[in-house]
Order: sequence, then structure tokens, then C-alpha cells
Amino acid sequence: MVNIAILGCGGLGQNMALLIEQKKDFKLVGICDRNAYFFDEKGISGLIVKDANSVEKVHGSVKSTNSIKDLISNYKDKIDAIFIALPNLPNEFIPNIAQEIISIRYKGVIVDALKRTKAVEMIKRLDSDLKRADILYLTGCGATPGLLTAAAALAAQSFVEVLDVTITFGVGIANWEMYKATIREDIAHLPGFNPEIVSKMTDKEVMKELEKRNGILELHHMEHADDIMLELANVCSRDRVTTGGIVDTKNPKKPISTNVKITGRTFEGKISTHQFVLGDETTMAANVNGPILGYMKSGLWLYDLGTRGALTSACIMPHFGAAKDNYLEIQKRQKTALAIAAS
Amino acid sequence: MVNIAILGCGGLGQNMALLIEQKKDFKLVGICDRNAYFFDEKGISGLIVKDANSVEKVHGSVKSTNSIKDLISNYKDKIDAIFIALPNLPNEFIPNIAQEIISIRYKGVIVDALKRTKAVEMIKRLDSDLKRADILYLTGCGATPGLLTAAAALAAQSFVEVLDVTITFGVGIANWEMYKATIREDIAHLPGFNPEIVSKMTDKEVMKELEKRNGILELHHMEHADDIMLELANVCSRDRVTTGGIVDTKNPKKPISTNVKITGRTFEGKISTHQFVLGDETTMAANVNGPILGYMKSGLWLYDLGTRGALTSACIMPHFGAAKDNYLEIQKRQKTALAIAAS
Repeated sequence: MVNIAILGCGGLGQNMALLIEQKKDFKLVGICDRNAYFFDEKGISGLIVKDANSVEKVHGSVKSTNSIKDLISNYKDKIDAIFIALPNLPNEFIPNIAQEIISIRYKGVIVDALKRTKAVEMIKRLDSDLKRADILYLTGCGATPGLLTAAAALAAQSFVEVLDVTITFGVGIANWEMYKATIREDIAHLPGFNPEIVSKMTDKEVMKELEKRNGILELHHMEHADDIMLELANVCSRDRVTTGGIVDTKNPKKPISTNVKITGRTFEGKISTHQFVLGDETTMAANVNGPILGYMKSGLWLYDLGTRGALTSACIMPHFGAAKDNYLEIQKRQKTALAIAAS
Repeated sequence: MVNIAILGCGGLGQNMALLIEQKKDFKLVGICDRNAYFFDEKGISGLIVKDANSVEKVHGSVKSTNSIKDLISNYKDKIDAIFIALPNLPNEFIPNIAQEIISIRYKGVIVDALKRTKAVEMIKRLDSDLKRADILYLTGCGATPGLLTAAAALAAQSFVEVLDVTITFGVGIANWEMYKATIREDIAHLPGFNPEIVSKMTDKEVMKELEKRNGILELHHMEHADDIMLELANVCSRDRVTTGGIVDTKNPKKPISTNVKITGRTFEGKISTHQFVLGDETTMAANVNGPILGYMKSGLWLYDLGTRGALTSACIMPHFGAAKDNYLEIQKRQKTALAIAAS
């Protein structure tokens, strides 16, 4: 059983809490957001976290303006792995959190779903600090970068030279409120914007931008860490990797199927393209949080073998954490948890 | 630089020798077949091996009726990794070779491209012997099982339960002479055949079987180790994995695109299918030998970390071994090698 702490309680963190509920080899023991943290070694119900929509409102949580530090420093010996589910605005935000976790002397595995090339570069620069601190930090472990980058690294095996990797994602979001932070990060990729500008925009200004575009964000040649990750994995130089996509912020249906195409030259001199396509019914939440848990599991395996420092997801096969067999049992547990919370 | 020995000099072994020629971080130092072995620490030209079509005919090779034992016991300290490129007929043939390598006291990484469930089970049973012998043995590291199994294990990350994995491969072979052993293994999957029966058939009898089918082998519900490998990787129980394919033994064009479909249920209760499709221009040789080298590289990384025993490819991300930058240089080297051989 892996004891997990989630830093952040937005859409990503809440859905991760729900997902962990269905995994028999993971247990959510800690969670925090801006104003509070909550720790329970017996396990925290994902349903309660989702219902509360903020850690502060979870029964038994502790108010704190320094919640990450308080959660980790008080309970670091009981946390096997940390998922940083915070929005990364500005670019150095999560790298700074990583440094804070080092300074608290946490030892174990940390996983993030960072997206920007510059942010992943900042994490890689912490490599020797992380090694000294006895931490294995896996970066870029979401969908893209993450699942699709790994598919590209896998597909590369048929070739002696990878000529082009093109990642195209489709995201449909029914409710922008739930994914405010993610949508802000996407807007930062539009021409004329960057993470610094977006971090200063009000929600109203963001809404106005979305209205202008009829809720649709078309993203081309994004600064996405798939490029540096495939370069670090020796697959190809970063200039051969392109990431783009379409985000519909008013419709849960994906505007296009998320896919990655890997074109290369074989040892026989043939040029060919492998393709990996995600089913439309899988949401961003499923495609990000699933891989995060898979990489966490591999991370714990590698940690036991003595691996430390900063690695990207493109070098590691995520392991599968089996799901619970009995769904009735989960529902029962959730009901019990809700009854206790309400009492 | 990784020093490799190849056991076997059929289609698979010869093409591996050619592929290594184009990889800057691998060097072929040893090769053997039924009647001879050849070792050269400075590196063996893939072109010469291909041209000779048997180790015996390579200039400087040593005749031996016990070539595997002689090659490995004489040069084991100079071999980092071994690729077993022998046909596995009967089923226990390669597991027996593995035991022989243990008894010679070789220490390092061994990789195979085994296909049958029963054969992979035999290798797994050697786990503690391999651990004691200081060997890391990676099994099922070809295309299927191998590349496509890994794609399934990766795709599984979006789901909490994997409901179905269906692998369908297309293989086109221009020249059956070159892939005699592979085609024999395929025939063993047809109704009424098994590895024992096929191992006793003459080439003429095999040809007759192919003629009957107009050169086309349609394979359904094959005994393929993708099933046990995904079970061992906790992805799903083996009964949810199906492998089939069409092999055209008279035409280099693939009769269908090789693909794997992974259907699962997400934590949100949606059923969806991810798909990984290989480009038709990639041959079996490219899709088997590339992953073999990738798994070898990961295996050496894990070996340095202290991992020993028998693992399947579905738990490991193959690492990419960079290709040489300068093709003119390779051609020059090949010409020089041929000139020396001819002199």
C-alpha cells in the first residue's frame, strides 16, 4: 500500500482523490490547498474531498497559511509519495515548491504533471540537490507530457533515427470553473500571452478571452516539455518535437482525438510513421492522473533500487496499480465515510 | 559502448548485426550458430555477417559443435549483453540455453524475443537461479510480445480496469528462406500443429503447407506471451488478452497494419479504447530488433542498479540507443571491413 499526499485541491487534485478511491494499492493520507491541510493515516475519502471542493471544508482539516510546509514537515515519515497537483503559474512556482520540500527534509518519491519546457529544465537543474536530499523526483508524468511522450519514446524503438514527433491533443471541458488553473495555463500558450501575464489576469478577464474565441482555444507550436524530455531520453533533438491541440472550454466532447505520430527511418532505410491514439471517452483527468499513479509506482520501485535525483517520465515505464475488485465495497466505504463526516 | 554477443545467425541475428552497425552506442563483438563462433573485441561488421549467411563462412571464425558454450565461456568477461536470436523449437530450447549460460557463469544482461506463453513461463521459473547467477534476463522483448505489449501496458494507465487487449499483427515476407525458423514457429500456431510437430517437419513439408494456403498464414487466438506478460505486470488477467495476425510468406507488403487495441474502464466509469498502430513500412526485423536493443540498454541501467532475475518487457521502458550521425562514415567502415575480409 502506497501512502500518498496530494498538494493542491483543484480539478486535478480532486479527481486524483477520486481515482485513488478505486485503486487497491494506493491510499490518500494527506491533502492541502492554499488555506488548510488534512492528514489521516487511515485514509481520506476522495468523495468527501470532491464534495468539499476545498481542504478547509473537510471535517478535521487544519487551517494554515503555510499548509504544504505544515503537512509535509508534520507527517513526512508517513508519506511514501507526493503528487504536486498545483497549477504552475508562474513557471518557477513548482520548482520552488520542490526546493521547499527538499528543505523540509522529506525523503521519498515526488511526481508532477508539469507541462512547460522551461519548468522541466528548472526541475532537472535540481538533480544534485534532490540526490543529496534522498528524493526521486519524476517530472512531466501527466498525459502530455507523460503518456504521449512515453508512447513516442516506445515507438522510437523501431527506428534508427526519429525524424518527427507530432503531438495533437483534444480536450473538452464541460465546466471551466473546475479547471480554471488548467485553462489559464492553456491561455498562456496563446500568441501575446505568457505565464507571467496570465497569472495577473482576473477570472473576468480570462472569461472575456474565452468568449472572444467562442470557448475554443487553438494551440500551435506550444512550449511543451515533450521536446526536452525526448531529447533527454536520446530519442531526438527537441526541434523535431511539436505539440499542439484544441481545447473546447464549453463542451465535454473532445474536438479531436488526442494522438501522437512518430516518424522515423528504419535500419533498412524506410521512412514510416507509428501512431498512438487515445479513445475520446477518456478525459484529461483519466489520462493525467492514471499515468501519475503509474509513474509513482515505478518511482517507488526505482527508489528501492537506490535511484535518486530528477528523471523525466520518458525514461520510465509506468507500472500499473491494480484497481479494486469489488466496487460494491468502495460504495459502502464511501457511504460510511460520508456518514462519519456528516455526524 | 555496449559489447553484444548474438546467439544465432538466421534472419533475426543477421538483421541485428546490420542494425548494430548503425548504432553508435552498441558494438557487436561475438556471434555464433550451429557450427561455429566468432569473436572480435574491435567489433564485427554486420555486412560481413549478412554476406556470409553463416558464422562458419566469416573469416577468422572458429568451428565448434558447442559454439554457444565456447563463445561465452572464452569471452564472457568481454560481453556486456547477450541477445538470444535462436528459433525456439521445441518450447524448452531457449530456456535450456538460459540454463547453460547460467552454468558457464556468465554475469550480465540477457535479452530474448520469445513468443510463446509456456516458454516465458519457463524463463520466469529460472528467476531465482538467474538471481543467484548474477544475471538480469529480460524476456519477450521483440515486437509481439514486446513493443506492442509495452504499448498496452502504457495505454492501460488511463483506466482503472483493463477489459480487453487485442493484438493483431501483419507480416509480409518476400523470401521464406530468410525466415524459415520464424515461419515454422508461426505454423506451430495453426490448428493441428504444435512446436513438437513442426520441429520434426522437413523444409519440403513446410513448403507444402504454405502452398496449400497460397503462402498466407491466418493466425487466431495464438498462444502468445503477451497474455502472461500483461498479467505479471498487473495490467489484466491473461484471459483478456488475444493475439492474432496474418502472415504473407510470398509478399513483402504487410497484409494488414499491425496494431494493438486496449479497452478499459476509466475511474469516471467510461469505457474507451486506445490504439497503437505501427507504420506498414517498418518490417518485422525493425520492430523486433529495435526494441531488443532498447530493452538491452534499460537492462544494463537496471543491472547497474542491482536488479537481477527474470523480468518481462512489459515492466520496463526500453531506452533509446542513439544512431550514428554520419552515414558516410559507416559506409566507409563497411567497405574497409569488406576489403580486409577479402584480402
